[in-house]
Amino acid sequence: MYSIKELQEIISKEVEGLSLPVTPAELYEPIRYLMAIGGKRMRPVLTLMGCNLFSNEIEQAKIPALGLEVFHNFTLMHDDIMDNAPIRRGKETVHEKWNANVAILSGDVMLVKAYELMMQSPDKYLRPVLNIFNKTAAEVCEGQQIDMNFEQYKTVQVEEYVNMIALKTAVLLGASLQIGALLGNASETDAEHLYQFGKNLGIAFQLQDDILDVYGAPEKFGKQVGGDIIANKKTFLLIKALELADAETLISLERWLNTEVFISEQKVNAITGIYNQLNVKELAEAEMLRYVNLALGHLNQINIASERKQLLDEFANQLLVREH
Amino acid sequence: MYSIKELQEIISKEVEGLSLPVTPAELYEPIRYLMAIGGKRMRPVLTLMGCNLFSNEIEQAKIPALGLEVFHNFTLMHDDIMDNAPIRRGKETVHEKWNANVAILSGDVMLVKAYELMMQSPDKYLRPVLNIFNKTAAEVCEGQQIDMNFEQYKTVQVEEYVNMIALKTAVLLGASLQIGALLGNASETDAEHLYQFGKNLGIAFQLQDDILDVYGAPEKFGKQVGGDIIANKKTFLLIKALELADAETLISLERWLNTEVFISEQKVNAITGIYNQLNVKELAEAEMLRYVNLALGHLNQINIASERKQLLDEFANQLLVREH
Repeated sequence: MYSIKELQEIISKEVEGLSLPVTPAELYEPIRYLMAIGGKRMRPVLTLMGCNLFSNEIEQAKIPALGLEVFHNFTLMHDDIMDNAPIRRGKETVHEKWNANVAILSGDVMLVKAYELMMQSPDKYLRPVLNIFNKTAAEVCEGQQIDMNFEQYKTVQVEEYVNMIALKTAVLLGASLQIGALLGNASETDAEHLYQFGKNLGIAFQLQDDILDVYGAPEKFGKQVGGDIIANKKTFLLIKALELADAETLISLERWLNTEVFISEQKVNAITGIYNQLNVKELAEAEMLRYVNLALGHLNQINIASERKQLLDEFANQLLVREH
Repeated sequence: MYSIKELQEIISKEVEGLSLPVTPAELYEPIRYLMAIGGKRMRPVLTLMGCNLFSNEIEQAKIPALGLEVFHNFTLMHDDIMDNAPIRRGKETVHEKWNANVAILSGDVMLVKAYELMMQSPDKYLRPVLNIFNKTAAEVCEGQQIDMNFEQYKTVQVEEYVNMIALKTAVLLGASLQIGALLGNASETDAEHLYQFGKNLGIAFQLQDDILDVYGAPEKFGKQVGGDIIANKKTFLLIKALELADAETLISLERWLNTEVFISEQKVNAITGIYNQLNVKELAEAEMLRYVNLALGHLNQINIASERKQLLDEFANQLLVREH
């Protein structure tokens, strides 16, 4: 079996080899730009891992894996317009470097390209692969819409929040594994368990992200500590704090949420203090662990020798101990 | 064989029956809204016509035909953002009625939905249908980008212009027919001829549009006469006039193009006068006729009884004599 590092190298080569027309430059240059600035290539690596779990031959999964990475980058290109984000992976976003129209249309053609790559699945798997891809692509759009809607809501329930992160992020991780499994000739049942492994792990990963934003060591996490707090982002921590706060704490919390002019450090310290008082970090960790266990339960049910599953175990651990 | 009217009724029912999720409403309501405000449903009708040309059974083409209409409406939703258009078919555009973010994301999910519908082709035709659809979808994006680029150019060559209208409009008409033909079990050669028929007819149709904008009877054409002239749109007429004008006429023409404050009627009259003097209407009609003949030449080569081709002949005539 391939190591994670080997799979990452295979994907790097596939990304470098991605063939796109030269003109019109405004349409294809932004795709090359965004694809080249990197990222962890998590989705295509998962596809190859999913395939390799059931088959020693992974050649047939390389191009569809690339398709999933192109799809993911398409969602980034359009999400960045909608979120008005100036920077992605340390570089100017496409709509900043060019303009919003370029980012819209270049993103559109990227989605078409993603389908073209997904279609390079063997005949036998074409329809099942595209069915999963279609369903997932629609869900990712739904997740982004629900996330944008949350900005307008005063309160959000934990279940709504988990549903949103599942749609926006986790289902694509699950689908990447599932598509890889099918291309490795897994049974439908095993492929479905692998999907559930990826989806639940993705939810856990996102919950960890919420925790790390507040409690992560900045030098390891690579983001501004408290960024979510500063932006009033409705994370698991904030949702839970709003739910659990007594009258007095709620007044204090809402005062910080409604103050437009503030010193960032003071706001972060004050809200972190409330989180600590309400133990929401521990609640988030418990919820995260619940999803990790759900994921591992599905991995456990897959009908292959347990030594083949070690790499996914390792991957899950790599994902989930970024700060410890 | 079905009449055009019968096929339009079949498509209307398919559009009405289009099943979409209810939530998130911001994602799916704009799709229902745009699909409901109508249009000629030209593309799906062409798909059914293409199918019916080779097969008395058209059931298998209905859903892919609907997919092509959804795709077309996706391009309208995104083009209207890029063109900053407030009105589409007499109603507010989606980005006006909601906002640009809604129009971006709702359009994205529409493209996914279009693929989902195209995929409801029988196994035998799945890969060929999706190959044509993919290629065409990318070309339509390229056409839109080239069209936007033209706004920045001082001059455009006739060949560049025809290439742009082919990509932006004509290839989708060709592909609609070709996909229908394949679903009617046509040979690849016949389906390719039908594609060329539709593509060339589409170019002719677009050239006619340029002529009608200036020379059409307003009550029949349904648009403002001279709208292209007022907007300095690089139509076949303007491109040809810039190419053929002598020094003195060119100065006069460019003065009108560069004047920002003007009385619309005066500008339309002046530039129409230059078009008349240079006979560009006749040149456009000749070019249009050339593409009509190319189209009919391909129709002629299709290997079926000529009486089956009458409907497409009729359709071509309906398209091309809107003002006479």
